[in-house]
Amino acid sequence: MSSIANLDFGRYERRGYPEAVLCDGKSLDQCVHIARTWRAKANEGLNLGTVLFTRITEDKAKAVTNILDGAIWHETARMVAWPGDVPEPSGGKVIVACAGTSDLPVAQEAALTARYLGRSVTELVDVGVAGLDRILAHRETLQSARVIVVVAGMEGALASVVSGLVSCPVVAVPTSVGYGASFGGITALLSMLNSCSPGVSVVNIDNGYGAGHLAAQIAEPQGDTHGTA
Amino acid sequence: MSSIANLDFGRYERRGYPEAVLCDGKSLDQCVHIARTWRAKANEGLNLGTVLFTRITEDKAKAVTNILDGAIWHETARMVAWPGDVPEPSGGKVIVACAGTSDLPVAQEAALTARYLGRSVTELVDVGVAGLDRILAHRETLQSARVIVVVAGMEGALASVVSGLVSCPVVAVPTSVGYGASFGGITALLSMLNSCSPGVSVVNIDNGYGAGHLAAQIAEPQGDTHGTA
Amino acid sequence: MSSIANLDFGRYERRGYPEAVLCDGKSLDQCVHIARTWRAKANEGLNLGTVLFTRITEDKAKAVTNILDGAIWHETARMVAWPGDVPEPSGGKVIVACAGTSDLPVAQEAALTARYLGRSVTELVDVGVAGLDRILAHRETLQSARVIVVVAGMEGALASVVSGLVSCPVVAVPTSVGYGASFGGITALLSMLNSCSPGVSVVNIDNGYGAGHLAAQIAEPQGDTHGTA
Amino acid sequence: MSSIANLDFGRYERRGYPEAVLCDGKSLDQCVHIARTWRAKANEGLNLGTVLFTRITEDKAKAVTNILDGAIWHETARMVAWPGDVPEPSGGKVIVACAGTSDLPVAQEAALTARYLGRSVTELVDVGVAGLDRILAHRETLQSARVIVVVAGMEGALASVVSGLVSCPVVAVPTSVGYGASFGGITALLSMLNSCSPGVSVVNIDNGYGAGHLAAQIAEPQGDTHGTA
Amino acid sequence: MSSIANLDFGRYERRGYPEAVLCDGKSLDQCVHIARTWRAKANEGLNLGTVLFTRITEDKAKAVTNILDGAIWHETARMVAWPGDVPEPSGGKVIVACAGTSDLPVAQEAALTARYLGRSVTELVDVGVAGLDRILAHRETLQSARVIVVVAGMEGALASVVSGLVSCPVVAVPTSVGYGASFGGITALLSMLNSCSPGVSVVNIDNGYGAGHLAAQIAEPQGDTHGTA
Amino acid sequence: MSSIANLDFGRYERRGYPEAVLCDGKSLDQCVHIARTWRAKANEGLNLGTVLFTRITEDKAKAVTNILDGAIWHETARMVAWPGDVPEPSGGKVIVACAGTSDLPVAQEAALTARYLGRSVTELVDVGVAGLDRILAHRETLQSARVIVVVAGMEGALASVVSGLVSCPVVAVPTSVGYGASFGGITALLSMLNSCSPGVSVVNIDNGYGAGHLAAQIAEPQGDTHGTA
Amino acid sequence: MSSIANLDFGRYERRGYPEAVLCDGKSLDQCVHIARTWRAKANEGLNLGTVLFTRITEDKAKAVTNILDGAIWHETARMVAWPGDVPEPSGGKVIVACAGTSDLPVAQEAALTARYLGRSVTELVDVGVAGLDRILAHRETLQSARVIVVVAGMEGALASVVSGLVSCPVVAVPTSVGYGASFGGITALLSMLNSCSPGVSVVNIDNGYGAGHLAAQIAEPQGDTHGTA
Amino acid sequence: MSSIANLDFGRYERRGYPEAVLCDGKSLDQCVHIARTWRAKANEGLNLGTVLFTRITEDKAKAVTNILDGAIWHETARMVAWPGDVPEPSGGKVIVACAGTSDLPVAQEAALTARYLGRSVTELVDVGVAGLDRILAHRETLQSARVIVVVAGMEGALASVVSGLVSCPVVAVPTSVGYGASFGGITALLSMLNSCSPGVSVVNIDNGYGAGHLAAQIAEPQGDTHGTA
Repeated sequence: MSSIANLDFGRYERRGYPEAVLCDGKSLDQCVHIARTWRAKANEGLNLGTVLFTRITEDKAKAVTNILDGAIWHETARMVAWPGDVPEPSGGKVIVACAGTSDLPVAQEAALTARYLGRSVTELVDVGVAGLDRILAHRETLQSARVIVVVAGMEGALASVVSGLVSCPVVAVPTSVGYGASFGGITALLSMLNSCSPGVSVVNIDNGYGAGHLAAQIAEPQGDTHGTA
Repeated sequence: MSSIANLDFGRYERRGYPEAVLCDGKSLDQCVHIARTWRAKANEGLNLGTVLFTRITEDKAKAVTNILDGAIWHETARMVAWPGDVPEPSGGKVIVACAGTSDLPVAQEAALTARYLGRSVTELVDVGVAGLDRILAHRETLQSARVIVVVAGMEGALASVVSGLVSCPVVAVPTSVGYGASFGGITALLSMLNSCSPGVSVVNIDNGYGAGHLAAQIAEPQGDTHGTA
Repeated sequence: MSSIANLDFGRYERRGYPEAVLCDGKSLDQCVHIARTWRAKANEGLNLGTVLFTRITEDKAKAVTNILDGAIWHETARMVAWPGDVPEPSGGKVIVACAGTSDLPVAQEAALTARYLGRSVTELVDVGVAGLDRILAHRETLQSARVIVVVAGMEGALASVVSGLVSCPVVAVPTSVGYGASFGGITALLSMLNSCSPGVSVVNIDNGYGAGHLAAQIAEPQGDTHGTA
Repeated sequence: MSSIANLDFGRYERRGYPEAVLCDGKSLDQCVHIARTWRAKANEGLNLGTVLFTRITEDKAKAVTNILDGAIWHETARMVAWPGDVPEPSGGKVIVACAGTSDLPVAQEAALTARYLGRSVTELVDVGVAGLDRILAHRETLQSARVIVVVAGMEGALASVVSGLVSCPVVAVPTSVGYGASFGGITALLSMLNSCSPGVSVVNIDNGYGAGHLAAQIAEPQGDTHGTA
Repeated sequence: MSSIANLDFGRYERRGYPEAVLCDGKSLDQCVHIARTWRAKANEGLNLGTVLFTRITEDKAKAVTNILDGAIWHETARMVAWPGDVPEPSGGKVIVACAGTSDLPVAQEAALTARYLGRSVTELVDVGVAGLDRILAHRETLQSARVIVVVAGMEGALASVVSGLVSCPVVAVPTSVGYGASFGGITALLSMLNSCSPGVSVVNIDNGYGAGHLAAQIAEPQGDTHGTA
Repeated sequence: MSSIANLDFGRYERRGYPEAVLCDGKSLDQCVHIARTWRAKANEGLNLGTVLFTRITEDKAKAVTNILDGAIWHETARMVAWPGDVPEPSGGKVIVACAGTSDLPVAQEAALTARYLGRSVTELVDVGVAGLDRILAHRETLQSARVIVVVAGMEGALASVVSGLVSCPVVAVPTSVGYGASFGGITALLSMLNSCSPGVSVVNIDNGYGAGHLAAQIAEPQGDTHGTA
Repeated sequence: MSSIANLDFGRYERRGYPEAVLCDGKSLDQCVHIARTWRAKANEGLNLGTVLFTRITEDKAKAVTNILDGAIWHETARMVAWPGDVPEPSGGKVIVACAGTSDLPVAQEAALTARYLGRSVTELVDVGVAGLDRILAHRETLQSARVIVVVAGMEGALASVVSGLVSCPVVAVPTSVGYGASFGGITALLSMLNSCSPGVSVVNIDNGYGAGHLAAQIAEPQGDTHGTA
Repeated sequence: MSSIANLDFGRYERRGYPEAVLCDGKSLDQCVHIARTWRAKANEGLNLGTVLFTRITEDKAKAVTNILDGAIWHETARMVAWPGDVPEPSGGKVIVACAGTSDLPVAQEAALTARYLGRSVTELVDVGVAGLDRILAHRETLQSARVIVVVAGMEGALASVVSGLVSCPVVAVPTSVGYGASFGGITALLSMLNSCSPGVSVVNIDNGYGAGHLAAQIAEPQGDTHGTA
């Protein structure tokens, strides 16, 4: 079974961020195989960073945490992290704001990813624009961020509204929350792509992992090797 | 050429609102023919209300106003009205709010239609959510309306934001303003259909006429014959 | 678990209509948590109006009605209301007309919402245009309405036909009833958006709640604080 | 230039109906070449029936009628027929009903095609459902048809309404008339495909020629060689 | 429960063809209720023709045949007919040709519908264009038809190929057979709408019932009351 | 202006086939600049093969042929080749079959590309399936090919039909020929992707160049360096 | 039950490649019936080649292998082959490269199909472009191929990257691997159709069988009867 | 004419970045009016930063530069900046990489925007993946960036490839470059949204301005007021 995967162990060295394993679309056996390979590689003493298993179901999570000692399963975020401890935060502050209760799994996936990649994260929950005062109440907090992840389904208006209030970048995550003409997140996706406020960029529908990863990159501490003019 | 159209002269009697002539897709000759038929019918003494020629181009507007004495061409709104005088307003107050300068033609089409159908209309221009304070400054005015028409392109977030601030119905008009993934207004349309704030309904892309007509119906004075429980 | 939702208890004060809880996409635990929060708030003596739990499944409905004393579960409409008693109606008359038997859940959701928000509602069932005499038989009833909600799937032609017969606004609700090229309600949605009869506006596919809410707003009694020119 | 086309001169023999030349997408030179080839073939004494050049622009129409003696250009229908005389009608009665003035070119293309293929045709113009009495006034006429072609843009509701009133087949032609979410005829197309009334089938958007051809086939006199059980 | 349906018992009188009951989207209780209403109406002596229950699942089929004495359940075609006997055929010959084995349910629904509505039907199975000789072998049979129903999924090419071989109308039924970019029948639907051969019209995806109904109308015996020029 | 393009002069060495210049979307100045750079490189003695300028308009073609001595402009194929002489053919035989006259520009682009890349090409014009005998007449010729390029718009059925008759690969090129629901070639594209006959693969809409290039690769003489097991 | 299928036993003779049975959409009974028919035909001594049952589920696979002696079920590839032995390879070398672990079922379907049709196949697994060095490590191997099948979901970039490195044809297979805006493989499909590298053609989403079949045709040994200029 | 726009002069103060004027969809008169208002405001001594007029055509550019003294028109980038001088760069390094010559206008719009907002920018032109060595040659340069803007049309694969080589964020800009199934940039957009490499986010099709703005925000110098944990 050695031919089913070709893990990119060098990514942590090359990119500064480790590879993650998208469990969606992989069988239980494949996830187990990958976890074992990872453990073996770590036992060799390679510096691999924290590996994240994303979009993991309960049965896969249990199998993987059985193999990887010290791994933690975050149920709502559908994520297993190994090692499970969050590193000491560095760099700028990340805020994750989500529009509704149903957006929580994606929001938590984003927040956890950013934390495991070394950032400090503040979460704002259920601050959708139907009751505008809920987000306006956090105006100052928002202005203290180095980057804000906005998670919203339905019409996704929160991204534009938040971006208009701050000077930092906004990473917008459309979610599949909604029904009918929300088309599984397409409406929120299109809405965010057409934001009338500059400074908004968009990741795939329900891609909390990607948003958290990007936020961690944006909020990277300046002392790092790259990035000075 | 009598067989090209079959005008619904009874609509004013039947529905309380006159027919309008959508000039888009009709030839100059056809518009002229319809104007003449209308004039003839009016000369017979029929009560036809104010006829509106919508989405009219300059050449058709000139031809039609030549035929119909007292007709007025509203260039930005692409509309000819006959008779040109606005009737005395009655019923509730209509507000037309538009997100950007480029939405003006549609917004004016809505406002003029509501006025010609007998309502009092207030216009708010360029109050998009990228600078949220622009719309918040009008919070009280908005709360005094019987119905609000929101005209917006791009991500169309203004409809949700306005609706969350008021108790009256919001008629949302997506516009084709934007580029790329705005898809000629589809994004704004979908966004408005998925508003997280109840009380929003939507008309066709760029359909200022339909929105103004509907607003006039919603804000109809209560003394009218229909509509009491 | 206090951070999963941020209920807008002030909406009843601010907008005159209470918040509703869309149960679709929320877990059983989240629904229970929200019901408890609501009860606690009510026990504090706050005026919250009637809270509606929409698109609720049987297990969630049972859990919620266990918590909220006097709540009623409307099975076909997939709705729990608390308090369960319908208020005394005021304002104009609402008619809900639905095209076919399969459209009933959405139609009843619309009718119940309007009733809980204080309006008098008449329902017309299975009056689709394939047998035109079925709707024509109700011509007079239709003309007595302040607003008509038309619920239809497939080609959604009923909205245009009804609107052409009356002077009041029509709120069109496309349903996901149909198969093949009905595309889960997209065809009905597009058809209604393109109605050749002015006075029709559209809400999201299967959004009976939104239509009933809007109808209640349109048929609001004139003595209310807002809305006079 | 003999290799640009490979005309199916045997079609009239094989199918009972001649080939038509879709001029859209062909250059003026190609149209001229085809007209000359046709004339040459006819001079050889082959029985080719009436050839129709469809969707022809003014310049091509002039070039083609110059070559084919006795050809007639029908401007609104964008068609050249050669020979230009309509044959004596036989078979059942065809009705072509169109919803609006802007649908006329397609409706006339359908009507002329059916006439050139040997049927008797009645046209009903501007009988859209916004004013339902316009089509109901023709109820008896409609019931006398062997087949009805319904031509409509926007929401295309006329097809369902007509089909519900009669027992004969309805051939529905969606047109590109409309704007915004009519999407160049897609909405009318989808609406007609989802007709709640059985007995409706659909041809391509703006395909008046195809509808007229099909209507002629359906209304074919029974004495013909094929088609008895 | 009397308000759930409003059956069009007059359709057989009005249109010459009885109403059918689309069971998809109706609950078991609703189907039972409708079957009982139908039986009661028949007991009153009304001439209702043969009622067809389409897209019926096993549990509903058993419930309905329990109520309607003499009803027959056609499992592959997912149809219950009452009375179950096929009437004596009259009119022209109908051929139903299907491209592949997986298209059989839709093909049989079309064939049975046409038979119950009084036509003689011949079926050709698995004659897709990948092996062209399979359909060419039936060339003569095809040319003897009054109308041909072509049932095909995937790229739907069979409709164009058959139409090019005959002079009678072709009713094309796209099916949802296929995967990937067949998009549940959209590809076959579009392909058939764009047939390069005139004389093809299209019904909704998987709509065997509609195709059989239409074929019966097209092949109607000429002695009937309507349809002579 | 040296920074506008970064030509891949090594492609002929690396891939055995030279780079082509897609002129669509490039300005006249940019095309001129590229032609000059190419000439300079050739003057250095580099072996660059034949360069093809595709989708070139008349003005650009004239400018480019002025610069490149011996270049030939193929007007219908919208192509300039330099050097203009077709090389001696080698490898297997390529057939390019096109469905209709309007598909000629794309078909000729494919045929010319394959010829300039060193293959022998036979063209079959206007052999669409509406008259099936036209393609069946070429059955033997088709069976002598190493690869067949099928160019068709509308419903694109020709690809499946041809593939079913032969054992060699078929490269299908959907064209934008058609109207209405052909959607600029999407229907032909989808139809070809869903071919019920294995051995068909598809390139982009109107991509005659890509099809010709691929055909040349498939029909490559076996003596070449790569490709033996 | 003899009328459910019309197997094309002559295909091996006519095309050089046997028919395959797509089990998706066929019932267990239909698969059993087809297996029996095939066995009977083989017992008659007909040369049918290897028959492949594709997209077969476990229950169907067991039923079919029970009937066909010596058949082999390849579980991951969801395929049954009869006879189960792979023939001696001939012709050019086929490489199947897949982007990720989740693409394995489709990749193995392609590889097995090519092997059963007589080619030698090399597989490269998990060589997606996120870690570019993984594919660059195989540069030489890739350049030794006669044809390369690239299997990828998500953004499908691997096809362009591989094609740019080699001179042989690339058959691209988009997979439904991904989520959100991957739309079940549409994104990968579109990406591959728009490859900036010539020499790429595309088959249907998840169509490993078609890709393997085509690869076998392209890599056919030159000594075969057809294909020399 | 004072009611046509409601400029957000406070944006520079509030967000640290000035407002831009999207000239697309605005008339010449409206652009002139806005330029004058801006000049008046600046004359009042307000600190407005550099105003950018984007997507400006030649006639509007000439009118605007006539009004605003010292403004510069960048023709390829379709931009007017006022004041025209680029400020002294600060913060991290921005790289703008574009796939092809036709992507230049969008790439230059991005690069200029970032420069006017105070960043140092390096441009890489025509480095698409068809010739992979072109981008690999810049590997070290890429790794020195704080953020990379990738501009690509067609299949948009460059974004994934670049992101896999670096640790900094990638802002992907799909362009409308391409034809057929590139659908005006939709394919590139979808491809970029589904990047298999984390760290990529996407802006609207052809939105060079938005990408440059976002890049400037990401590469902001750390000494700024916001953004430390």
